[in-house]
Amino acid sequence: MLQPWLPVAPDSDFSIHNLPFGIFSDDRPARAGVAIGNWVVDLATAYGLNMFPHYPEAGNAFRKPVLNELVALGRSFSDYVRKIIQTALCDRESVLHQYSDHLLIPQKKVQMHMPLKVGNYTDFYSSEEHAFSVGQIFRPENPLFPNWKHLPVAYHGRASSIVVSGTPIPRPRGQIGQADGTPAFKPTHALDYELELAWVIGKDSAVGQSVPVAEAEDYIFGLLLFNDWSARDIQRWEYQPLGPFTSKNFASGVSPWIVTWEALQPFRVPAPLQQPQPLPYLAHHPRQNFDLSLSVGVRPGHREEFLVCQTNARDIYWTAAQQIAHHTVTGCNMQIGDLLATGTISGKNITQKGCLLEATLNGTQPVKLGENIERRFLEDDDEVIMRGFGQNVNVRVGFGELRGKVLPALL
Amino acid sequence: MLQPWLPVAPDSDFSIHNLPFGIFSDDRPARAGVAIGNWVVDLATAYGLNMFPHYPEAGNAFRKPVLNELVALGRSFSDYVRKIIQTALCDRESVLHQYSDHLLIPQKKVQMHMPLKVGNYTDFYSSEEHAFSVGQIFRPENPLFPNWKHLPVAYHGRASSIVVSGTPIPRPRGQIGQADGTPAFKPTHALDYELELAWVIGKDSAVGQSVPVAEAEDYIFGLLLFNDWSARDIQRWEYQPLGPFTSKNFASGVSPWIVTWEALQPFRVPAPLQQPQPLPYLAHHPRQNFDLSLSVGVRPGHREEFLVCQTNARDIYWTAAQQIAHHTVTGCNMQIGDLLATGTISGKNITQKGCLLEATLNGTQPVKLGENIERRFLEDDDEVIMRGFGQNVNVRVGFGELRGKVLPALL
Repeated sequence: MLQPWLPVAPDSDFSIHNLPFGIFSDDRPARAGVAIGNWVVDLATAYGLNMFPHYPEAGNAFRKPVLNELVALGRSFSDYVRKIIQTALCDRESVLHQYSDHLLIPQKKVQMHMPLKVGNYTDFYSSEEHAFSVGQIFRPENPLFPNWKHLPVAYHGRASSIVVSGTPIPRPRGQIGQADGTPAFKPTHALDYELELAWVIGKDSAVGQSVPVAEAEDYIFGLLLFNDWSARDIQRWEYQPLGPFTSKNFASGVSPWIVTWEALQPFRVPAPLQQPQPLPYLAHHPRQNFDLSLSVGVRPGHREEFLVCQTNARDIYWTAAQQIAHHTVTGCNMQIGDLLATGTISGKNITQKGCLLEATLNGTQPVKLGENIERRFLEDDDEVIMRGFGQNVNVRVGFGELRGKVLPALL
Repeated sequence: MLQPWLPVAPDSDFSIHNLPFGIFSDDRPARAGVAIGNWVVDLATAYGLNMFPHYPEAGNAFRKPVLNELVALGRSFSDYVRKIIQTALCDRESVLHQYSDHLLIPQKKVQMHMPLKVGNYTDFYSSEEHAFSVGQIFRPENPLFPNWKHLPVAYHGRASSIVVSGTPIPRPRGQIGQADGTPAFKPTHALDYELELAWVIGKDSAVGQSVPVAEAEDYIFGLLLFNDWSARDIQRWEYQPLGPFTSKNFASGVSPWIVTWEALQPFRVPAPLQQPQPLPYLAHHPRQNFDLSLSVGVRPGHREEFLVCQTNARDIYWTAAQQIAHHTVTGCNMQIGDLLATGTISGKNITQKGCLLEATLNGTQPVKLGENIERRFLEDDDEVIMRGFGQNVNVRVGFGELRGKVLPALL
């Protein structure tokens, strides 16, 4: 058992088994760090103290304001860095211990930034419970389209407006269809979150080439919590025939720490059986998901936070490998820093729904936030807090929090 | 009248009034250039010879392998560079004339590259003739959805797979729905081009802020020809409910030379009247498009090229300013290097249709390529050639060619 010399709470998301990568700043500019307990390991400074002697050329990657260059060095590099830090955290003779005043910075003293320059972002629709219950709301006679069980349905999202946890979200204004069939321009009355995970792509592929499903997991650097903010009334009016656009592109949130592929391995579980069997380019064995507990809390104004969703990522119908294989099947390339989000993750029960659209049956059955407060959709000053972690008897690995507060619409 | 000292054919797209920006390489690395007649002006070398004394800090922008940094310097900068070159081209005492052996490189001796790192790419659906005739094919009872005349319908496309003219396109393979309701995995039998124009964004806006329609044109750096390659059989099976994905994301083509906003001004024309009137955030005066002749040729194998489409951009229903205002209305930001494509540009007549889906009525009425050849959709070794230009009595400004050849599907 790894026993670090600094105190890490047993329920900390940032255990010695996790060591996720992020971008932080204090009085010095934004740079790369690794989270441990309540601290950040300053990788740029650690590099200066020669903690990573096998990669003498890697110093620049630690000093950049995004992790793309670090990710581009490959999983063998990030794994090396994590192992060095893991060892140092258990060794009171280490440089990390010796220079801990310079190398370990309390998380509450730093600001976290967007971990990546996201080149391309794709949102899948890979939770069957979600696709089915949303389909039931909009098309009761036909909840799942005939293609849904044959391919991981997805759309290209907007990369530019992905923002890090803590960035406030002004209530969007846009076109909303009215009963008379014409639109009005007004603030959305149906602002929603979507609880998702987003795979970070860590390897380039070439335009015109497909990534075989058996190799697809090699393209994953790590995982983030993802909130695909959505304005349901705007979405309903605009989405035909080309899909959601202004109802989604105003902002998406990500958690600041990228949990690495290696740190997720203890939580592999079999993915749900697929019937009908998918085409061979989507077939892989073993098909596995990750047993990750996920939750959403809503905190109205300055009041207490209430949990509105508790679910798990283990039952996602289409695996990450299948998503990548399908995304590239016709020849689309993957690029380092791309995000592939799962789509809303929901379970069967009403308390397991990853968005308010489902949890309130399209606003008809409000959720309760304690005794006196209820919500059909989000109101101004509501803060949405997403959390996620994997846990077994020995190991806990989590994402920390993804927070976003709704501000009143701009005039 | 501007009279250059080097010979420029009267029908050259690259007249002294155009001077578009691109990225080229010869025996030296890729760098910025401006096209004039059959030559490229080497901007990096011109900078070294002090041709741009008012921007001493701009040298790096000319030496980069993409134009994003140059674009970021603003339209006042690019306009300054064009005016310096324009003046020099009319002055036999100029540095450009004196050092023409070093500064002017024949276009046939250079390779053109992607002019930009495209951060985000959006495809609109803004030609009414196109939307209506495609709608008629797929939904004869309901060709235009109720939202179409109220907002510029669009979807987010894939930025990573945008390739420059001349890049060959392997025939994509993917899921195609069959008569029994299940999909087969095979090469597309309905490969199509889409004739479009793409606006290059030259200015950043902030997340959470809308760009007012009256200011939207300030965000445009210039214009490209754009080919949104599409696999119609894959598209038909996958597109519900979130829009096209693998049927489009395998590749999109762009012409190598960015025609600047300033060079397009002589071709402004009134845009079609809009009925019903759009909401105030989309209303601007004067609403103008650009009178640009557009064509598509198909060259089967090593045979002759045949024109399959001649149309014009003047009748696009939603203007560039309206597209930007709508794109940002809920708070989505614009970033330098983003592309906003118009969607397929079609006219009323069958010879004015910007894609084969329309020109062949979904493959039922083949187009003739001379006496003995016809096409329902594209075949292997077909080369698609798009061209476009504006012309009045004094001025011709064009895009050059956007070429792409279909290769057989990979095994």
